[in-house]
Amino acid sequence: MDIKSKNENRADLNKLMAENDDFFATFGAMDDAVYEDGVIPKKYKELTGLSISILSSCEECILYHLQGCISEGANKAELIEAIKMGVIGGGSIRFPSARYAFKMMQDLGVL
Amino acid sequence: MDIKSKNENRADLNKLMAENDDFFATFGAMDDAVYEDGVIPKKYKELTGLSISILSSCEECILYHLQGCISEGANKAELIEAIKMGVIGGGSIRFPSARYAFKMMQDLGVL
Amino acid sequence: MDIKSKNENRADLNKLMAENDDFFATFGAMDDAVYEDGVIPKKYKELTGLSISILSSCEECILYHLQGCISEGANKAELIEAIKMGVIGGGSIRFPSARYAFKMMQDLGVL
Amino acid sequence: MDIKSKNENRADLNKLMAENDDFFATFGAMDDAVYEDGVIPKKYKELTGLSISILSSCEECILYHLQGCISEGANKAELIEAIKMGVIGGGSIRFPSARYAFKMMQDLGVL
Amino acid sequence: MDIKSKNENRADLNKLMAENDDFFATFGAMDDAVYEDGVIPKKYKELTGLSISILSSCEECILYHLQGCISEGANKAELIEAIKMGVIGGGSIRFPSARYAFKMMQDLGVL
Amino acid sequence: MDIKSKNENRADLNKLMAENDDFFATFGAMDDAVYEDGVIPKKYKELTGLSISILSSCEECILYHLQGCISEGANKAELIEAIKMGVIGGGSIRFPSARYAFKMMQDLGVL
Repeated sequence: MDIKSKNENRADLNKLMAENDDFFATFGAMDDAVYEDGVIPKKYKELTGLSISILSSCEECILYHLQGCISEGANKAELIEAIKMGVIGGGSIRFPSARYAFKMMQDLGVL
Repeated sequence: MDIKSKNENRADLNKLMAENDDFFATFGAMDDAVYEDGVIPKKYKELTGLSISILSSCEECILYHLQGCISEGANKAELIEAIKMGVIGGGSIRFPSARYAFKMMQDLGVL
Repeated sequence: MDIKSKNENRADLNKLMAENDDFFATFGAMDDAVYEDGVIPKKYKELTGLSISILSSCEECILYHLQGCISEGANKAELIEAIKMGVIGGGSIRFPSARYAFKMMQDLGVL
Repeated sequence: MDIKSKNENRADLNKLMAENDDFFATFGAMDDAVYEDGVIPKKYKELTGLSISILSSCEECILYHLQGCISEGANKAELIEAIKMGVIGGGSIRFPSARYAFKMMQDLGVL
Repeated sequence: MDIKSKNENRADLNKLMAENDDFFATFGAMDDAVYEDGVIPKKYKELTGLSISILSSCEECILYHLQGCISEGANKAELIEAIKMGVIGGGSIRFPSARYAFKMMQDLGVL
Repeated sequence: MDIKSKNENRADLNKLMAENDDFFATFGAMDDAVYEDGVIPKKYKELTGLSISILSSCEECILYHLQGCISEGANKAELIEAIKMGVIGGGSIRFPSARYAFKMMQDLGVL
């Protein structure tokens, strides 16, 4: 599946969940609010989100936050530093997630 | 892969494991026994299994327990409450698993 | 620290967090709402919370949900079945959490 | 144990490990290097470290990165935003870690 | 609590669990059986148990398998190699567990 | 994707990462060094790597260490014992990983 399809798929399923129970929309909005521009700028929050996603071995989260980082103007070097924080924190069992992040960076045209 | 193929695949590999070492059959039987009807009814155990599967980001476990819930007569609203317990407990890194559960609920015809 | 002190400590720190940022009160309320009586009765949700707590190796969560289970009228046999679901799901690395749960059951007078 | 003793204890054991095998000093130095000032400023890396520590339910890591954040001039509001990213990402099973972080913020005099 | 008390405490609680439900004795026996001398010698299994315990941030497991390793004749250098496998696999969030392992090695007189 | 393609894919992405930042090559080399023949023979380290991979639900890691085990002369019975240590330690949520390991053992011709 290409990135556009993955994004549509995520949006469709988020909509399906929200239609079935308010909880998912509320939780999603709360997550969005936490990642909003605050005393920590949104760009650095998205980069943190990327580190967390690597540490959690969560591929959908990696792609989501990679795109969030790029939207906030993060460059290749910043993305790589965020990935490194995930790997040093979570160890070699996170290498597959780091590889996935680099693959997605290629597909997103930032590498 | 459709759900029928996934189920066959799981059964085939469980059989392969059991043929190679009794441990896997014994462990599987122990897992089945824990989920049997007890002082906690089997339906609520299967719903707990679904919550645990969301919290563990385990897609095969989600599909397995979704089917177990449905076999025990759990309805859509109960399934959703179990998914919510997994998400509130395990946070937004479990959203991909919740989306997977909703997708499978669609494929299983309960949504 | 005895259970009463642990409970007070938890309440005090929850209050401290809520005073500093609404997020923590909101998140806490959302967690409470998910565990409210629904199509799944509150007692079974609390038992699920206990299973999740074992699987997450979270001692404070174990004590919290043990007390929630008991408030909802769960008996010793139901508590043990919930603990077993956490152990079979999460393996022998959860035995320390199961031991902690049994110790707390003693201290709470249900064993 | 107070914070000063915890810090000494960590330093002593790190020294003991390094004396026994270079690996631990090398790994520690690599971790330090990843957290150095880079294209992402050190302050935001330390805040990411705090988020990761909450998400990993690692109390020693929380205290370590809290102190790193404060050394880099992070204020109370920034610390709280970092904690919130750990909680929304990792769910209510991370509330005990958030409580611990707030307790340590009190002891460190930033609350 | 010293190591002797920790061991007694673990044994007492294991007994309490087994008296309340056969499951815990059966599961414990299954765990013992997996760690028995096999085509992989028991010493290397115990060392694997130590690596797993580091990776799982499980202090009781670390102490348990450290003692198992020593009973099987593992020396300091072997213990350290097993700890390193846990740290490189699980990253810097496992450093507190490595420190705990070294502290216990001191208390057990192998360092 | 067949195993040869998976291996090439892993090698290509590791190269891409290393070209972009020395960190990944250094970390990879450190991981290799930890798994080198030492006081614990490399074969038993690779088997430990397999156990850790099962416990971490990491499919790429499973395939990587399965091949490492086989290169070191580990036979079917040893592989199975290592898988069992991962399952008993990490519970039934690791069964999908055990199934994946058996599937890969078939594809690698050791079953």
